[in-house]
Amino acid sequence: MRKLEDCEQPTRTVTFFKRKLQDVIHKISTSDAAAGTVTSVDRTVCMAKTVRLMAEPKENVVMEKIVSLCKRRGFIYQSSEIYGGINGFWDYGPLGVELKRNVKELWWNVMTHQRDDVAGLDATIIMHPQIWKASGHVDTFTDPMIDCKTCKGRFRADQTSEIPCPQKPSKMVSECHGEKTAPRAFNLMFQTHVGPVQDDSTIAYLRPETAQAIFAQFKNVLETSRQKVPFGIAQIGKAFRNEVTPRNFTFRSREFEQMELEFFIKPDEVVEAISGRIEGPAPAGSSPEPQPGWGWEAWHKYWVEERIRFYEGIGLSRATLEEYWQKPEELAHYARATVDILFKFPFGTQELEGIAARSDFDLSQHARCSGKSMGVFDDELRGAWSKLEESKKKELGERYYKARLNYLTRTGMDAAEAEKQARGDSENLAKGQYIPHVIEPSAGVDRLILALICNAYSEDQMPDEKGKLETRVVLKFHPRVAPIKVGVMPLLKNKPELVRKALEVRDLLRPHMNVFYDDAGAIGRRYRRQDEAGTPFCVTIDFETLEGIKEGPLSGRKDTVTVRYRDDGRQDRMAITELVDFLVPKIR
Amino acid sequence: MRKLEDCEQPTRTVTFFKRKLQDVIHKISTSDAAAGTVTSVDRTVCMAKTVRLMAEPKENVVMEKIVSLCKRRGFIYQSSEIYGGINGFWDYGPLGVELKRNVKELWWNVMTHQRDDVAGLDATIIMHPQIWKASGHVDTFTDPMIDCKTCKGRFRADQTSEIPCPQKPSKMVSECHGEKTAPRAFNLMFQTHVGPVQDDSTIAYLRPETAQAIFAQFKNVLETSRQKVPFGIAQIGKAFRNEVTPRNFTFRSREFEQMELEFFIKPDEVVEAISGRIEGPAPAGSSPEPQPGWGWEAWHKYWVEERIRFYEGIGLSRATLEEYWQKPEELAHYARATVDILFKFPFGTQELEGIAARSDFDLSQHARCSGKSMGVFDDELRGAWSKLEESKKKELGERYYKARLNYLTRTGMDAAEAEKQARGDSENLAKGQYIPHVIEPSAGVDRLILALICNAYSEDQMPDEKGKLETRVVLKFHPRVAPIKVGVMPLLKNKPELVRKALEVRDLLRPHMNVFYDDAGAIGRRYRRQDEAGTPFCVTIDFETLEGIKEGPLSGRKDTVTVRYRDDGRQDRMAITELVDFLVPKIR
Repeated sequence: MRKLEDCEQPTRTVTFFKRKLQDVIHKISTSDAAAGTVTSVDRTVCMAKTVRLMAEPKENVVMEKIVSLCKRRGFIYQSSEIYGGINGFWDYGPLGVELKRNVKELWWNVMTHQRDDVAGLDATIIMHPQIWKASGHVDTFTDPMIDCKTCKGRFRADQTSEIPCPQKPSKMVSECHGEKTAPRAFNLMFQTHVGPVQDDSTIAYLRPETAQAIFAQFKNVLETSRQKVPFGIAQIGKAFRNEVTPRNFTFRSREFEQMELEFFIKPDEVVEAISGRIEGPAPAGSSPEPQPGWGWEAWHKYWVEERIRFYEGIGLSRATLEEYWQKPEELAHYARATVDILFKFPFGTQELEGIAARSDFDLSQHARCSGKSMGVFDDELRGAWSKLEESKKKELGERYYKARLNYLTRTGMDAAEAEKQARGDSENLAKGQYIPHVIEPSAGVDRLILALICNAYSEDQMPDEKGKLETRVVLKFHPRVAPIKVGVMPLLKNKPELVRKALEVRDLLRPHMNVFYDDAGAIGRRYRRQDEAGTPFCVTIDFETLEGIKEGPLSGRKDTVTVRYRDDGRQDRMAITELVDFLVPKIR
Repeated sequence: MRKLEDCEQPTRTVTFFKRKLQDVIHKISTSDAAAGTVTSVDRTVCMAKTVRLMAEPKENVVMEKIVSLCKRRGFIYQSSEIYGGINGFWDYGPLGVELKRNVKELWWNVMTHQRDDVAGLDATIIMHPQIWKASGHVDTFTDPMIDCKTCKGRFRADQTSEIPCPQKPSKMVSECHGEKTAPRAFNLMFQTHVGPVQDDSTIAYLRPETAQAIFAQFKNVLETSRQKVPFGIAQIGKAFRNEVTPRNFTFRSREFEQMELEFFIKPDEVVEAISGRIEGPAPAGSSPEPQPGWGWEAWHKYWVEERIRFYEGIGLSRATLEEYWQKPEELAHYARATVDILFKFPFGTQELEGIAARSDFDLSQHARCSGKSMGVFDDELRGAWSKLEESKKKELGERYYKARLNYLTRTGMDAAEAEKQARGDSENLAKGQYIPHVIEPSAGVDRLILALICNAYSEDQMPDEKGKLETRVVLKFHPRVAPIKVGVMPLLKNKPELVRKALEVRDLLRPHMNVFYDDAGAIGRRYRRQDEAGTPFCVTIDFETLEGIKEGPLSGRKDTVTVRYRDDGRQDRMAITELVDFLVPKIR
């Protein structure tokens, strides 16, 4: 199973990239291609952006420490490690899985439960292959690859002059001048076959993004959820991309998880027909209630702000993030605007999430390819339209017509047919019918987990039990995402009355939060272990718990414990009965 | 994409099965093959069992109603429906995804957070292919298939005399006497290729079960989680099986989700060396605390009881379940006992979960195939062993030796080598070293969701707004799993003060539970809609909320609401301030 991409040599490859792709680098922003929108982006360009962001030596030291901590403490392991691993696949260990679950749960809660206007979906990874034809992935989700007739290796067409040798991966083969085949498109979707026959008719793909299932099920959700446009459909799930060069730990892996929202809105022409005008976006930084008069631009800015607030709420301050607004020449033809939310990773400032205004492209594609209508009927539009002045009808109708014509023409449709269909679509406005537009906030779970770990990682000096300063590694997670919320510890393991009381405290807290009970070793060591796990609170049961506090204003009071804070090591004394009310608001 | 299995005709196929497989049916229990243990089971036998359980016409009517309700209310849709669907794949809609999330969350909570002795894991779906060699799936997870040289169809070898014609699927082709190829094994794992080259060296599989990742990562979790045997590793995730005949709605699909625990225990010889004896299982129906003296049998029964209690806790009473203890001749060679927990579906009594005592087979296989040790070191064993009488050492050592020899011989190992290795393993006991055994409770998420829906489905008579009895469809979910916990409704939509107050109640409850706000239509209709969605409570804000209760002991009191109960339509009057404390304990 040793394969070419397993032998990648980042440092030397970078040298090559820097030289070879110099001419495109200066054009490129700091953002990476938006997950879920990459189909329309030249991946060579993406690679170039990455080059610009490759880690400096000092940053690699930090990443090495983080990768090592992740393995040592059970956050992230290499998949199939006992068999030598499999490049681009990573498993989440006991702490990692809790961190990931917390993040996904918070996203789901904010995106669906705390709102009236979003419904959830959980679709399959393997879907009908036509979906990927309609989305464009079958035809354009590719890297250019060539074969070397001498060494039989297969390479990216833009990486042939200096590449690792397939026979001796430690060696670079720029000396290799074997005859190469012409470049051909290598599709990045994983392929399989459904059913007992393996031929072209049974090919299916592992989804390269979760978004398309939302579009394919749009009408089912609309009809069964009692939602009306504007509304969204949210989904969390695995996606797969057969990356030629997985890299930067879990940042770009072949199997990953996405959290995607498709928020369907009325086209501006419809908003204007109903509301009489288009309301502009709210001022940056504000988080207003959605308004009926909002056009796509206001909705887009609203979602950018909502998503940044989400990141703030789990511990990524605005100072750690960057907003990158894609330039007109970087946008896919159907996209009206795309904002990337970037995080400052040790290996460079890279994308966590893309928020794209994708027009009605996706629904239109599925309508065209499936032959099923993706339009909605809006009684309010029909009523409003009939009351418009003729000149307004004409103006709005013409704008809608042009947008539809632009889409239909780009599909390769015969000009006369495109005009006829666009005219029909425009005339449907009067009947209250239109195809919704969409705003797509699309986030990668694994890169967010990595961002949270990088952001939380810190080293400081703290006195050990004898008062001597020692370096402490601590993960300063926001308590909301911390894998373990509280460590519960009897001061000593061999005093049954301490242990009994500690178990009582554990059982008191457990229904409300994830508790780790630890009685092994010196208490200072146990605190350090929880620091490394990112546990925000430790509760210690000691002799004063049993016998009463020795001195001070609370002298004589029993059933109190020490609450120790991860970030600064400070300790408070607190009644056991106060613990739940003290801790619960901090972790939710 | 129209394929043979898409054209299956259950009724006629059943006729064939009944005749053809009559001779095996009587041997077979009511249970299906345990998810995760099916590799060792002849799948032809599984098919026969299914035949015996095929739905009777009356039961089909119930299933048809359930399938229709699932689509209509957004629990479950056919995957890729707008493209004609893809056989064996199902999507969860807005209500289905909430139901599924609740079930998974409850399982995770009970299995990990509420215990000290289980750690979580979240591994990739694509793993190193060696894992499936070690597990036996590459070699034995197969159906026998043959090709017809005349009609070019591919069929299961046991289904050739009466099968749907591949050209005209509506026609059965027992008249088709084309020459057939010899049967060959068709592997049920979905295959793909990782990396840019597609050849035998890059084949990878979609996992057909989640269990193997747990075994492969056993040592990593052991070393990083501070767990000691006995302890378990829990995982929830997708798995894939290229079933030739997916059937019974979501019960047997090609993409599904599993909740699996591998609970690692000491071999009986180790328990006996440390504790002096093996404690027997606790009496059936009891749920005792695990004991240090428990051997595999006690642990196995403990987990059977724990799992049944889990099902009871989410609304599946013992009366809806059956326990099936596999007979010795049904067990896989390495299994010591397997219990299937069955649910009485409308289409037959079928398996929800299998709980298998799998000895040290899995860890041994991975140790042998990876060359990495899967043994653990136990200081307590080493100490205890040194204090044993020689005769006891000999007796325990011999038992352990024989078990290891039995395993090693079955791997096809040369007899002398097997004896040498088994002797070495046995001698390691004195050093405190052994390979843990495992108890595996393995549940299917999708079939559990289907069981919950079937169990909840009921029709009754309830008066409409005019007092006339009408048939009501209601899903009587346990409040813990219900997708929506409470519907919040202003009595009338067009009274701003009612709406304002209702929104206040919504916002009061929303941080604690999933709330559905509904102001559209007559209140009776709105209740019925929530009945069909399985929402256990509705809260209605009416004029007495605003103006005070008109008569009775609470006369004049403001800010009260109606709480309406789904199951019997009864209504209580309650202060808004009491709602959270009233509802929260019922839904957790």
